[in-house]
Amino acid sequence: MASQNKLNIALCGSGRIGRVHAANIAAHPGLNLAWVADPMVDSAREVATLYGAFATGSTDDVFADASLDAVLVCSPTPTHIDLIRAAVGRGLAVLCEKPIDLDIDRARSCLADLAGNTAAVMTGFNRRFDPAFAAVRKRVAAGEIGRLEQLTITSRDPAPAPAAYIAASGGIFRDMSIHDLDMARFFVPDIVEVTAHGANVFSDYIAEEGDFDSAVITLRGRNGELVSITNSRHSAYGYDQRLEAFGSQGMLRADNISPTTVRSFGPLGVEGADPYEPFFLERYAAAYRHELDHFVDAVRTGSRCFPGFEDGMAALILADAAAESAATGKTVSVEGALHK
Amino acid sequence: MASQNKLNIALCGSGRIGRVHAANIAAHPGLNLAWVADPMVDSAREVATLYGAFATGSTDDVFADASLDAVLVCSPTPTHIDLIRAAVGRGLAVLCEKPIDLDIDRARSCLADLAGNTAAVMTGFNRRFDPAFAAVRKRVAAGEIGRLEQLTITSRDPAPAPAAYIAASGGIFRDMSIHDLDMARFFVPDIVEVTAHGANVFSDYIAEEGDFDSAVITLRGRNGELVSITNSRHSAYGYDQRLEAFGSQGMLRADNISPTTVRSFGPLGVEGADPYEPFFLERYAAAYRHELDHFVDAVRTGSRCFPGFEDGMAALILADAAAESAATGKTVSVEGALHK
Amino acid sequence: MASQNKLNIALCGSGRIGRVHAANIAAHPGLNLAWVADPMVDSAREVATLYGAFATGSTDDVFADASLDAVLVCSPTPTHIDLIRAAVGRGLAVLCEKPIDLDIDRARSCLADLAGNTAAVMTGFNRRFDPAFAAVRKRVAAGEIGRLEQLTITSRDPAPAPAAYIAASGGIFRDMSIHDLDMARFFVPDIVEVTAHGANVFSDYIAEEGDFDSAVITLRGRNGELVSITNSRHSAYGYDQRLEAFGSQGMLRADNISPTTVRSFGPLGVEGADPYEPFFLERYAAAYRHELDHFVDAVRTGSRCFPGFEDGMAALILADAAAESAATGKTVSVEGALHK
Amino acid sequence: MASQNKLNIALCGSGRIGRVHAANIAAHPGLNLAWVADPMVDSAREVATLYGAFATGSTDDVFADASLDAVLVCSPTPTHIDLIRAAVGRGLAVLCEKPIDLDIDRARSCLADLAGNTAAVMTGFNRRFDPAFAAVRKRVAAGEIGRLEQLTITSRDPAPAPAAYIAASGGIFRDMSIHDLDMARFFVPDIVEVTAHGANVFSDYIAEEGDFDSAVITLRGRNGELVSITNSRHSAYGYDQRLEAFGSQGMLRADNISPTTVRSFGPLGVEGADPYEPFFLERYAAAYRHELDHFVDAVRTGSRCFPGFEDGMAALILADAAAESAATGKTVSVEGALHK
Repeated sequence: MASQNKLNIALCGSGRIGRVHAANIAAHPGLNLAWVADPMVDSAREVATLYGAFATGSTDDVFADASLDAVLVCSPTPTHIDLIRAAVGRGLAVLCEKPIDLDIDRARSCLADLAGNTAAVMTGFNRRFDPAFAAVRKRVAAGEIGRLEQLTITSRDPAPAPAAYIAASGGIFRDMSIHDLDMARFFVPDIVEVTAHGANVFSDYIAEEGDFDSAVITLRGRNGELVSITNSRHSAYGYDQRLEAFGSQGMLRADNISPTTVRSFGPLGVEGADPYEPFFLERYAAAYRHELDHFVDAVRTGSRCFPGFEDGMAALILADAAAESAATGKTVSVEGALHK
Repeated sequence: MASQNKLNIALCGSGRIGRVHAANIAAHPGLNLAWVADPMVDSAREVATLYGAFATGSTDDVFADASLDAVLVCSPTPTHIDLIRAAVGRGLAVLCEKPIDLDIDRARSCLADLAGNTAAVMTGFNRRFDPAFAAVRKRVAAGEIGRLEQLTITSRDPAPAPAAYIAASGGIFRDMSIHDLDMARFFVPDIVEVTAHGANVFSDYIAEEGDFDSAVITLRGRNGELVSITNSRHSAYGYDQRLEAFGSQGMLRADNISPTTVRSFGPLGVEGADPYEPFFLERYAAAYRHELDHFVDAVRTGSRCFPGFEDGMAALILADAAAESAATGKTVSVEGALHK
Repeated sequence: MASQNKLNIALCGSGRIGRVHAANIAAHPGLNLAWVADPMVDSAREVATLYGAFATGSTDDVFADASLDAVLVCSPTPTHIDLIRAAVGRGLAVLCEKPIDLDIDRARSCLADLAGNTAAVMTGFNRRFDPAFAAVRKRVAAGEIGRLEQLTITSRDPAPAPAAYIAASGGIFRDMSIHDLDMARFFVPDIVEVTAHGANVFSDYIAEEGDFDSAVITLRGRNGELVSITNSRHSAYGYDQRLEAFGSQGMLRADNISPTTVRSFGPLGVEGADPYEPFFLERYAAAYRHELDHFVDAVRTGSRCFPGFEDGMAALILADAAAESAATGKTVSVEGALHK
Repeated sequence: MASQNKLNIALCGSGRIGRVHAANIAAHPGLNLAWVADPMVDSAREVATLYGAFATGSTDDVFADASLDAVLVCSPTPTHIDLIRAAVGRGLAVLCEKPIDLDIDRARSCLADLAGNTAAVMTGFNRRFDPAFAAVRKRVAAGEIGRLEQLTITSRDPAPAPAAYIAASGGIFRDMSIHDLDMARFFVPDIVEVTAHGANVFSDYIAEEGDFDSAVITLRGRNGELVSITNSRHSAYGYDQRLEAFGSQGMLRADNISPTTVRSFGPLGVEGADPYEPFFLERYAAAYRHELDHFVDAVRTGSRCFPGFEDGMAALILADAAAESAATGKTVSVEGALHK
């Protein structure tokens, strides 16, 4: 089934995000979708049939395939660590959806067991591959705005996930803000302090789960950079995903994306655009493709994957610190946790 | 009443635009509003009282005042030529609202009688003093976009004037497009050809007056510049006044103005601004002030007023050519009329 | 090679635009690229190898393949008519790049020979499939801006083609404006009059070829709609492709596309975006894909292709009228030519 | 000198901001500039001469004028409290520039002495009168975005004040952020918690003064509203003054203001606007005028001035809390201080 030039890859998980990855794998010239694994075998079979792959309900079948090169993990969070262990143990490259786990101790234990063998483990922080965010990052790195001083990240979901999802999510900081915490590290790798505030302003069931529906986080970088993150679990005007990088010589801003450039003019208002892309599947469609490109390139060339397992851990450490700060009303130092 | 440092000025006409000028004169440090003249004496008196001027129903009183320095003419069009003659005859500077007349022969006869004595006659093409249009003009003149090749002017009124106004207006080209034809000359002084198209797409009463409610005009400059003007007597989203200057090295665009920078975001659309300023009194408020500044400066320094009487004639000649072209379906050369 | 569910398609022409189509065909789930034909056999072979198709220097091989379903013609313009004849004669569907020919009489003769058998002939006016233009068209058709009254199309190439291309192009109206003339018909199908102006403002070699480097065209629709088209063979800020549809109740505008939403802020200016997509391959990448989707759908369902052969002829008739108007300075009626 | 319908007002302080107020007073139809008082008598005299007022080096002269109606205080901060006492003691209305003082205890003592007699004391938080901010506030109050959940304020000065100014300023929170803290209260009157972070990223002399050059502040309102304020003492692209109000049903944003609507297009970028207004005199020119209108209206109608003395105190309390939070790394409750 696979041509000899293509990497054989298995997809673990065939849910919403798994299907995005399946389509991208199928369209990728360097990949062959070998397996789709999911305990819900019908779902696995449906996806596998679409792209000419094998389906299975057990990842044992996947790991028994000696021709396999890589695994893409998009199964539920509690399975991530075990699948990473299994894959690395068999010498397979892994692209694992975020978060790597909700428990930093389990992640630490996994890291110890991997004994530094994490070069081929990539964490799926897809936003780093968004063309606009990546362009800002590149231009900041090239010095276009001088020294980076302040970073403002706005990140609002269109609507809250259902209660069952919230209950298992690990809370807004570990589930939602974690993307923004990684984005902060993309621009300011060396974070030293975390301060966070949560609020309950619109959702009773989120409050009943003991979680926040809104949050503001402030990070401090080692060189005095201040990062502001604003989160909400809802947004009436679509998925709100923006950032501003402010430096000594200017500012760069990545705005939201409307489906087209069409603007309307009428008695009630002018220059209005269509509502933004509804959610991450549309907003980050290009990011998912570029993430996969990056993974394939790294695997082919044998270079270290970025963002890696340690980046997944770092984001989780920041999320834990945010949760602690929100609970205590104190700024939390992450010097010890992040920089040992 | 006037301090010795201020120019004494008389306002002929106290209608809508006259009141704009009256307020600007009152606020101008270099002007003293001496007279308000209007056959509708009550109106004249109302304005005069507001600003401490004398009121009269007859311009004879105005011209009998030996202390007068200047006249601002915003009475009905048929009176313009006679008031210009009278003012110039008495050595007064004149700022005359456009058009100077609807009959080019009357204008020519006036010019002949003035025997070249037109340095202190200014035509009220206020748009030349709009901050955005003036900035584009200045930057084009400074070479920012290289050689000017194409100019695109969009000019749409919010709603058509009533039938009585239309009947006396001289038609869309002489009444409305004339502003855009002057704007074309502001950027491309040497126009050689005019082609125009009129249409009747929404107003029965304008059609019944034998006039168009919509028009497109194309001008050619001596150096091959092509100017496109798009006009409509209505616009559902407010007064639409824009231009684009396209050159060999770039483009400059002057956009419409919303009352504030507020943008709204909701389920039906994002980034929408408030409707544009409703009409010329609001849209060109700054332009009217700057026009007056320019007039006062020219009178004080004795330099020639721009745009002058001849510019008023040139715009009328272009409007006449547009009307002829729209009637005949042929491009009309204005070489003979404009460049003798 | 082809699965039984896919349409077998041959590509005639393997130049720049042919390669765009080849890649889109290869990525299309409903198409199998069977042949690549090009007298420059090395080029055909290069493309064919990339996508697993057969290569040939002669279209005879293509037409001898009984398993073929469709032909995509992107060879030089003089070959279009003959390839359309050959394809329709063999019952194949055809997607032919614009223009169908530079000589309206050859096109008419072809149409007569096809005896009305043009349902499966599609003309490659890709811009109709641009997401922004298509969205404006759909919203206008849905009545969002009331009755369409004015349409303003701006279309500027980044840089002029070389002299050899210009010499064989048929002139700016038949080569470049033809896309805009088709776009005008997309919004105002029933055009009755054409007025055009050409100018030579920047290119000596285009002038030496007897062609214009700049143009402005005005069209009139049967219901009084006025269409303004502004063209230039160069643009310092990238490929400029925009339109505004103005109606009785509002306006819709499709703007240019920057590569990302990034905006920069510095001492020299604020809110600036990156230069627009450089040329049609980038700007209309989505349009080419959607055009192919549309073709495949029409072929599969047996419905008539739009835009069709007659639309290709209509655009050519308008281009011929524009050339005549530019030469004579007169408005040209197309009632007889377009509406018989 | 004063007409009987005009309020006689004295200006205490004739520096940069005093001259803005002097010009606005002179142009205001309801005010007569009676006195200009400044210990630097030459400066007072210069301004007084310009507008036909009396000049003095001592405010005693001012308060001895029985015809006086109001005082506008724009002298150095340490003089504010005494001038407010003196004015209120004589039954005069006062418009006092912010801050009312740098020492909350002095302000409290003054308030006690005034014994609730503060209806005619207005604090000069001019930004509340900015047309864009005021429009957002009004639309939020009208329910356009549902319930207000998050407020994001960006406020960056173009360049830091000199060291001497910094030394006497009371620090970034009391000197600069205080405007933003008042803006927060304009939208969320009932603030309960303050968290602040300061940083030193670009200015050595500010660090040497023991002050921050950058800051981020988070406020919590009683109903869970989260407010984010981002401050910097410099900005390479001009004075940066924006806010976003995010609610359950949408968002409203007030953007920066460019001098004109001109946008430029060239090889290096497109759609760029001119740099923003350089600093507060230009950016808030309209706000200063509207602030004065509001003051005059309140005085004439005898209604309570807003924002009042207590609002000036509240902003100072928040600034003190911000300074404390930045020093301790802890969130500071202002329940006791603000809500007793």
